[in-house]
Amino acid sequence: MPKKNNISDSKIVNSQRKSVHPTRIMIEKVSPEIDSGAFPIKRTIGENVVVEANIFVEGHDEIAAVLLYRTAKERDWQEADMKPLGNDRWAGSFPIKKEEDYFYSIRAFVDKFNTWRLSLEKKIADAQDVSVDLKIGIQIIEEMKERIKSEEEIKMLNVCINELKKNKNINIVLPLLANEDLLEVTGKNFNVHNSVVYDKELKVTVERKLALFSSWYEFFPRSWGTKPGKHGSLKDCEELFPEIARMGFDVIYLPPIYPVGEKNRKGANNSVDCKKSEPGCPWAIGSKDGGHKAIHPELGNLASFKSFIKKAKEFNLEIALDLAYQCSPDHPYVKEHPEWFKWRPDGKIQYAENPPKKYEDVLPINFETDDAENLWEELKSVVLFWIEQGVYIFRVDNPHTKPFLFWDWLISEIKKDHPDTIFLSESFTRPSVMYRLAKGGFSQSYTYFTWRNTKQEFIEYLTELTQTEVAEYFRPNFWPNTPDILPEHLQYGGRPAFIMRAVLAATLSSNFGIYGPVFELCVADAIAGKEEYLNSEKYEIKQWDWNKEGHLKDVLARLNKIRKENPALQITRNIRFCETNNDCLLSYYKATADYSNIILVVVNLDPYHTQIGHLKIPLDELGIEKNRTYLAHDLLSGDKYIWQGDTNYIELNPQVASAHIIRIKQHMRREQDFDYFM
Amino acid sequence: MPKKNNISDSKIVNSQRKSVHPTRIMIEKVSPEIDSGAFPIKRTIGENVVVEANIFVEGHDEIAAVLLYRTAKERDWQEADMKPLGNDRWAGSFPIKKEEDYFYSIRAFVDKFNTWRLSLEKKIADAQDVSVDLKIGIQIIEEMKERIKSEEEIKMLNVCINELKKNKNINIVLPLLANEDLLEVTGKNFNVHNSVVYDKELKVTVERKLALFSSWYEFFPRSWGTKPGKHGSLKDCEELFPEIARMGFDVIYLPPIYPVGEKNRKGANNSVDCKKSEPGCPWAIGSKDGGHKAIHPELGNLASFKSFIKKAKEFNLEIALDLAYQCSPDHPYVKEHPEWFKWRPDGKIQYAENPPKKYEDVLPINFETDDAENLWEELKSVVLFWIEQGVYIFRVDNPHTKPFLFWDWLISEIKKDHPDTIFLSESFTRPSVMYRLAKGGFSQSYTYFTWRNTKQEFIEYLTELTQTEVAEYFRPNFWPNTPDILPEHLQYGGRPAFIMRAVLAATLSSNFGIYGPVFELCVADAIAGKEEYLNSEKYEIKQWDWNKEGHLKDVLARLNKIRKENPALQITRNIRFCETNNDCLLSYYKATADYSNIILVVVNLDPYHTQIGHLKIPLDELGIEKNRTYLAHDLLSGDKYIWQGDTNYIELNPQVASAHIIRIKQHMRREQDFDYFM
Repeated sequence: MPKKNNISDSKIVNSQRKSVHPTRIMIEKVSPEIDSGAFPIKRTIGENVVVEANIFVEGHDEIAAVLLYRTAKERDWQEADMKPLGNDRWAGSFPIKKEEDYFYSIRAFVDKFNTWRLSLEKKIADAQDVSVDLKIGIQIIEEMKERIKSEEEIKMLNVCINELKKNKNINIVLPLLANEDLLEVTGKNFNVHNSVVYDKELKVTVERKLALFSSWYEFFPRSWGTKPGKHGSLKDCEELFPEIARMGFDVIYLPPIYPVGEKNRKGANNSVDCKKSEPGCPWAIGSKDGGHKAIHPELGNLASFKSFIKKAKEFNLEIALDLAYQCSPDHPYVKEHPEWFKWRPDGKIQYAENPPKKYEDVLPINFETDDAENLWEELKSVVLFWIEQGVYIFRVDNPHTKPFLFWDWLISEIKKDHPDTIFLSESFTRPSVMYRLAKGGFSQSYTYFTWRNTKQEFIEYLTELTQTEVAEYFRPNFWPNTPDILPEHLQYGGRPAFIMRAVLAATLSSNFGIYGPVFELCVADAIAGKEEYLNSEKYEIKQWDWNKEGHLKDVLARLNKIRKENPALQITRNIRFCETNNDCLLSYYKATADYSNIILVVVNLDPYHTQIGHLKIPLDELGIEKNRTYLAHDLLSGDKYIWQGDTNYIELNPQVASAHIIRIKQHMRREQDFDYFM
Repeated sequence: MPKKNNISDSKIVNSQRKSVHPTRIMIEKVSPEIDSGAFPIKRTIGENVVVEANIFVEGHDEIAAVLLYRTAKERDWQEADMKPLGNDRWAGSFPIKKEEDYFYSIRAFVDKFNTWRLSLEKKIADAQDVSVDLKIGIQIIEEMKERIKSEEEIKMLNVCINELKKNKNINIVLPLLANEDLLEVTGKNFNVHNSVVYDKELKVTVERKLALFSSWYEFFPRSWGTKPGKHGSLKDCEELFPEIARMGFDVIYLPPIYPVGEKNRKGANNSVDCKKSEPGCPWAIGSKDGGHKAIHPELGNLASFKSFIKKAKEFNLEIALDLAYQCSPDHPYVKEHPEWFKWRPDGKIQYAENPPKKYEDVLPINFETDDAENLWEELKSVVLFWIEQGVYIFRVDNPHTKPFLFWDWLISEIKKDHPDTIFLSESFTRPSVMYRLAKGGFSQSYTYFTWRNTKQEFIEYLTELTQTEVAEYFRPNFWPNTPDILPEHLQYGGRPAFIMRAVLAATLSSNFGIYGPVFELCVADAIAGKEEYLNSEKYEIKQWDWNKEGHLKDVLARLNKIRKENPALQITRNIRFCETNNDCLLSYYKATADYSNIILVVVNLDPYHTQIGHLKIPLDELGIEKNRTYLAHDLLSGDKYIWQGDTNYIELNPQVASAHIIRIKQHMRREQDFDYFM
């Protein structure tokens, strides 16, 4: 039985006592610290890490604290000041400047010099005799000198001692002691010689910028053949790149491109009766043509895949592949590694099921196999294989049906040599499971966005995602639709609903994606009573008229342009909600840390009716003076308004515009510019 | 640099991988767990420990969990079922039955049998062919049998296998599989063979009942001499026992009874000019007559102290001593251990100060001395000395001016051999400091109660103390006054204010105390502009007329009788506030876990005016049917009312009664008792 954390008070204390001066300062409730430090927090380059802690000592001594941080490759700590927030809470922050993992901790110390100095001030204010106190001060400084090597600093302290010795005039002594340079030297001295370090080094996983800010476009390549009904190839799909790039996306996510199984292949609408001509579901992976390291022959081969990736790069597009660890009954693994599957008492292999649902064309991998070690290595080799082909983004199918420790291991193994790899967790299940996957290393995660509809739901959910500990390790990726989900609001709300959901996804979250072209073509045909596509592309080769009237390609292009031009929209944690007096009007703003970029969004959640209301803008938070005018520039419509005061009238007709995306700028102060009153 | 908690993912995972089936179940966010398990929670005998955790596994398997608990002396865990609360949160509880420290942890497991059984149910409901599933079930049971030793259990499983083999009639099979005895056997089997144990063993410090439920009476023994101005003796004070016992107190707390220093002795009202006849402040400890192990000669000697303790015991009174680690300039330590004090550059010893305040009659101990080890041992020997004399309760003076690790060590050292010892922390400072002292082992703590006045303040403060993690380790002791504090409301509010504060202290908190007889005599003379007693007993020998008209001894007796007779008032964590529509009417109830004892309190916070209002009683929570009448018995006035419905009129005239303390009882159902409608 493990006994790792039994409390053996006397042992701890006795070991502390061995030092002459046992630890006096307590450092508690450090935040962020995920599960006692078992998991790292996540950042990208350019972000900050704000660290808080309760730091205190017995008695009345003055203390100070510094935040310690370093990259994993550095040996020495860098330091950042921590400031008291009141009630023993301290805060500090450090910037992520290198694309390497970081560590952070806290050092705190009793500042004897400052303790003495401030008590001297109080005594002087009370007109007490301080002649002995001045001598005590000299003692403190003399002791300090013994520990200092810098001649310049010793000189500074000597000046101070001399002044203390000769000056009976306390009015001269006090400002001398409050000199900032002196306080820096004395503070630094106690920091080095009299300090306590927090007993954990907490980790920051640093990923490339795309992990935080990305626009995903998903499409089925087989639907883009040159003739109706003809299986599309990767080569055919290269034709899509200019338009996808024009729409402003940066990640193209392809559903599985591997050979599709033939045994128990599903027909249109998931039918168990499959016609010979039907292509099957791409998630039924593997056939005589190969498994997870092969390409569907009609899509192309490794050579055409490499050309596809290269061509995409020319348009600044990166390819994400689907990592679905499951097999069709024809997958080579079945013969080569029968022990990796479950076998039934009737001698048949077990297909996937979630009773009463059956997935006859898909076999789950048996992670409880006795051959787990080889299995894990083989699954890792799949990722490495595609990395070799130039793929660094993986959208992981249903990770919540495989063991958590497998993902922890896989992602850390891959990231060792390929830290640029991004993993998106496609897990729609209970929060603790989705959050555990994120803690274990997934860079991004699907969310409940697709099922959030009302103002209250958005505020509650985004608050959970951005204002709690979750924000430190779970990066949301908001999808209005997926091949599996055509949510009810899109079935009924028409084009305005699609626009509204695109605006929400693209501005609430810095990572968002759509499944196209059904999204921009506003396809809304569902299976009756379900949130699923009728005649789903998962089971059919489709032919799309991408330029059909009413398409949203220009809206998406505008949205992505706004996102690219406004750094405030490239972060998710910075969202703050604004008050409106109409429950159909959702409003929020995002700002960069320095408030140089402020984006205010107002969305009409009702796709049918014009909604009007008043919006309250938190001028104080935005640093806008109450009586100054400011410029509100609607980046969607191009309209500009000059606003004043914190309350503004909003009217949104979904037939015209479902939303405002307003850039707020302090307006020029005319009298300054024209010397009007001078 | 310590590197205790660096995250070395691959190492963790690799070690897990060595076992064929790595840990699948996650156990997270265990509560209570103080600072990652660094500190124990606290309980007394008869209390429960409710433990919650997030417990989950990947995929769709059924899991189960048991709470593990044992006393520190036991080797084997006992188990208590945990139940799912939804969203992967599980809860269970165990009772504290022995006066020993406990440990607890969690074991969770995948229940393969139940997983199979419930999926079978769904398939049958969907009219699927389950013939293979029945065979799988037989496999699972056969495997289970190999691990089972009990013949009876094997027999039960064989019956089950036979039924599964012969019964094609699934309508018979399903109820058979849902048999509770069978599920107990199968559940137990996976619990033993397929389980994961949380990686921490969390500790419960168990103390005697008095740590949770106590009524303290503090008085200065020297004021009870036989003649005006004559120094009282312990012998004289034995005369007080019958009346203190009649008032229902169980702890007599004596300010320091040690010899009082003569050098720099303070006179009346803390004057630096002290007349020869003045007795000095008892907290200026130590003189030529001895230090912390001696008794003030005029109070008596060790023999009279032993008699005092023995006599007190006859009245069920226990003596608490003051543990004030500080010295007068005459204390023997000064000569014997000059290195335990701070010395100034002018050769003088440093007295206590909190600039600009000076305490010339008191020397602080220098815990940063190089002789810390001997110092700590000597301070420990003080406690052991008084324990030898029969003292098991210590009220610790200003613990927040001594190092936290000293208290952690001292309390754990003392409790090793004397687990019955109770330490009360007299710390009025910032919350994190007060809470850290409690975490380190103090049994009880002074609080901010003395400065809380309004309804909102009480609700906020009590919610923090009882509904957050704080409740697990911080046991409040509420004092309406102390020798140091005569709060403003008592200075102005007259007798009704004293009654109001006594009711609040005695019913909000299961531990409370008063400094008498000034409290029950409603002494309200303060130093102008301060919350301090004028002519404080700290510096003078007083003479009290304990039976002065208007005294509150009978009120206190009534309050303590109510507390003793109603177990609901013997806990603090169980407080719940009730709605009233008047901000001067504070209302709350406390109930035992089984609701057999329910006490509803309503207090008029305004000592001057009659306040009226409506009180909303949460009948649902109390288990009272909406249309039933119930008995409301005011235990203060003796009045009884029959109430019905959740809203009741309240009128409290402070000249008559500042509060109701109502015992709520479901009223007899008359028609049942008299067969009225039969």
